[in-house]
Amino acid sequence: MFVDRTRLLSKNIKKLLRRGATDNLHNIINKTHTADLAGIFQFLSLSEQKAFFNLFDKVEQKAMLFSELEHEIVLSLIEAEPAEKVAEILERMPGDDVADLLGKISDVRAKALLDLMTKEGSKDVEELLGYDPKTAGGIMVVDFIALNQETTAKEAVEALQKEYIDIEMPFYLYLVDDYGYLQGVVSLRQLVVIPPATKLKSIMDADVVSVRTHTDQEEVAQIAAHYNFLAVPVIDEHNKLVGIVTIDDVIDIIHEEATEDILKMAGLGGSVKYIETQTIFKSIRKRLPWLLASWIGGVIACYVVAHFEQSLNKLVYLAAFMPIIMGMGGNVGTQTSASIMRGLATGRIDINQIWRIILRELAIGFCLGFVYGAMLSLFAQFKYGFEMWELGMVLGFAMICSMTLAATLASSIPLVFHRYRIDPAVATGPFVTTFTDILSVFFYFKIATLLLHI
Amino acid sequence: MFVDRTRLLSKNIKKLLRRGATDNLHNIINKTHTADLAGIFQFLSLSEQKAFFNLFDKVEQKAMLFSELEHEIVLSLIEAEPAEKVAEILERMPGDDVADLLGKISDVRAKALLDLMTKEGSKDVEELLGYDPKTAGGIMVVDFIALNQETTAKEAVEALQKEYIDIEMPFYLYLVDDYGYLQGVVSLRQLVVIPPATKLKSIMDADVVSVRTHTDQEEVAQIAAHYNFLAVPVIDEHNKLVGIVTIDDVIDIIHEEATEDILKMAGLGGSVKYIETQTIFKSIRKRLPWLLASWIGGVIACYVVAHFEQSLNKLVYLAAFMPIIMGMGGNVGTQTSASIMRGLATGRIDINQIWRIILRELAIGFCLGFVYGAMLSLFAQFKYGFEMWELGMVLGFAMICSMTLAATLASSIPLVFHRYRIDPAVATGPFVTTFTDILSVFFYFKIATLLLHI
Repeated sequence: MFVDRTRLLSKNIKKLLRRGATDNLHNIINKTHTADLAGIFQFLSLSEQKAFFNLFDKVEQKAMLFSELEHEIVLSLIEAEPAEKVAEILERMPGDDVADLLGKISDVRAKALLDLMTKEGSKDVEELLGYDPKTAGGIMVVDFIALNQETTAKEAVEALQKEYIDIEMPFYLYLVDDYGYLQGVVSLRQLVVIPPATKLKSIMDADVVSVRTHTDQEEVAQIAAHYNFLAVPVIDEHNKLVGIVTIDDVIDIIHEEATEDILKMAGLGGSVKYIETQTIFKSIRKRLPWLLASWIGGVIACYVVAHFEQSLNKLVYLAAFMPIIMGMGGNVGTQTSASIMRGLATGRIDINQIWRIILRELAIGFCLGFVYGAMLSLFAQFKYGFEMWELGMVLGFAMICSMTLAATLASSIPLVFHRYRIDPAVATGPFVTTFTDILSVFFYFKIATLLLHI
Repeated sequence: MFVDRTRLLSKNIKKLLRRGATDNLHNIINKTHTADLAGIFQFLSLSEQKAFFNLFDKVEQKAMLFSELEHEIVLSLIEAEPAEKVAEILERMPGDDVADLLGKISDVRAKALLDLMTKEGSKDVEELLGYDPKTAGGIMVVDFIALNQETTAKEAVEALQKEYIDIEMPFYLYLVDDYGYLQGVVSLRQLVVIPPATKLKSIMDADVVSVRTHTDQEEVAQIAAHYNFLAVPVIDEHNKLVGIVTIDDVIDIIHEEATEDILKMAGLGGSVKYIETQTIFKSIRKRLPWLLASWIGGVIACYVVAHFEQSLNKLVYLAAFMPIIMGMGGNVGTQTSASIMRGLATGRIDINQIWRIILRELAIGFCLGFVYGAMLSLFAQFKYGFEMWELGMVLGFAMICSMTLAATLASSIPLVFHRYRIDPAVATGPFVTTFTDILSVFFYFKIATLLLHI
């Protein structure tokens, strides 16, 4: 695994730092890919990070490193640096990375840094800061290749040679009209193979898919993945081309959204960097509130059971089946909500067919409940003897009831959340489980009381 | 959402198909992006799919459509087609897509189709079929641009104009020596801006990162994402360049692996296409076996509780606290295993520090157990009166015990699985939950029996 390679390299660097082997370290910095150098930082202690960072000589190197590093690390690195030096680095970074970073510090400090930057650099960043960081506007790059549609291939190549040297991923040339409105796109590949005098207008793909500045980043990622685009153009409310979202950012978004979904489903909030970078105390603080829902649910379940204490007193063996009834409901609920969640995330579920989907899950829950309820019923008669057939009935019904309810709740709650634009991943965690637990226990004892005439 | 747009379009197409409005449909086929056309198919019934597909006139259109469609749909479409026609379409598809497809049908039929294809096309496919579909070899494209390192920029452009017209994503030019060994890479962007007489060798990046044919696809994706590559070159055991993995496939892998993790964690196996495309019966069959673990666990828990029936008989109110003790353990277990899983997937966890990680999770579980145990203890005294302080003690200890155990199990099981190269996602599903349930119940009653002297 290449992660292990980074870890190995970081051990080496720790050693060299202790020895003060500056020459070796300089050598490593100059020879190693910035992405790898950034990877090393996460294995270094705070003081090692600072010492290592100070060995980066060129401002350009520092700028590239900052673009790759996690924001937390960058923020701790710039804390001690004089503002002038920080501004110098920020100026050499892509505007979207600077905006992301400044969005994480206090407004006063961000303003101070922007004031220190050159006018041109800070203007782009200030514009980007105006967008929600989870939208196309917040993740777009403002350096892109936009040429007038009347440009010829030869002129375009010349423009590439002179003007557009620092462009991050220049694989598409966007063509605009005299007013800056997006008219079409030509790929660099086409540009290479056409005769120099060809007008780009004549070969451009005029049916270009674009997104708005306020489009959610998840949708931008879906579009890029759907059409296999290397970049998606972003237009503002006046239909003017204002930026592009590049494929590397799309990949980050897909990673981020998947991790968020998993963590939320598990009741861990949505923090992407969960483990290892956090202290034990922080981990505890993060997990505590999510467990509260479960605790309160448990207390309610406690009242439910206490309500049936009379029945339990007479037939104490009923308690032995509580874990299986609750557990099976819980597991079927998790299965259901995970598949619904994933269906919503990938767009496979049509939210307009909400009733059809819930009915489908209800049917599945019922069938699964029937199978495992029957098995439990048989097991009880094997354990307690055939004269306990009434107990068998109770258990079978309770299992069907618990699993049907769980499947119904676990499908309907995320769907309803989704419809009202609440993140469905939140609903699938402790909430559904707890809710299911309470209802399972209640119906179990209710059925027992009725059928066993207690 | 652009998925909704596809759905809308598919409704329109259903209507046109019913009316037999062939002209309109032809029009739509010619004007719509193939990715969108493919999206429409998933909303059509089997007979509608066939009718719509028959309206595609050009073999090239059919080939592009097949590359985008889900394999299940392609397989059902080609079922009725004569083999000659199918071979004709396959020939025009990228080799990796054909190999994927043929990997899903019987060997006899695949062989027959390969025999019908032209020799050149079928050779590539046969080679690709030799690789595990989840490795770099299985997902790579064999059409890439490889030039001798002595080539000049001018010669490269000429080669692009003549030879490499069908290349999928021609944004890198790979340079090889006389023996076909990968020596370096030049981006198309560089090619455009250098003087025509420049030898590519002089400007190439010689430090090119490549993967082996047997490298796991997940690692290929990690590398592409890490270095922001648009393609990763693949070399065989003789260090010869044999293919490239393109960024669009990387995105598919990231999607696929995230979905698989989520579904496995929820006890749904690893099928990517879970919902909507499956019938209720298939869904049930898929979920049944995963629930068996939970059912067996429940039966064991049943014996555990029965073992303590004496204690329960004397103090029936103990049963009321079973749900909360089990539920809190279960939830903390889910939190723990999800964060471990994600740490493993993103490479943040160092498997060599397995004991440190487990101890860390144990400490977190203990602290969380202490907080919620104390709260439960207080609650019990509020509910049953202060003279029941011994019950409070029992509940507090049981909660600490349950949550510490859950955190320990939920971290150690995935880590041990990972070390022995079993997919850790499997361990986090029903297994951990069930195991935790049994132990929680056991220790709860054990502590109660000891402390309450029953």
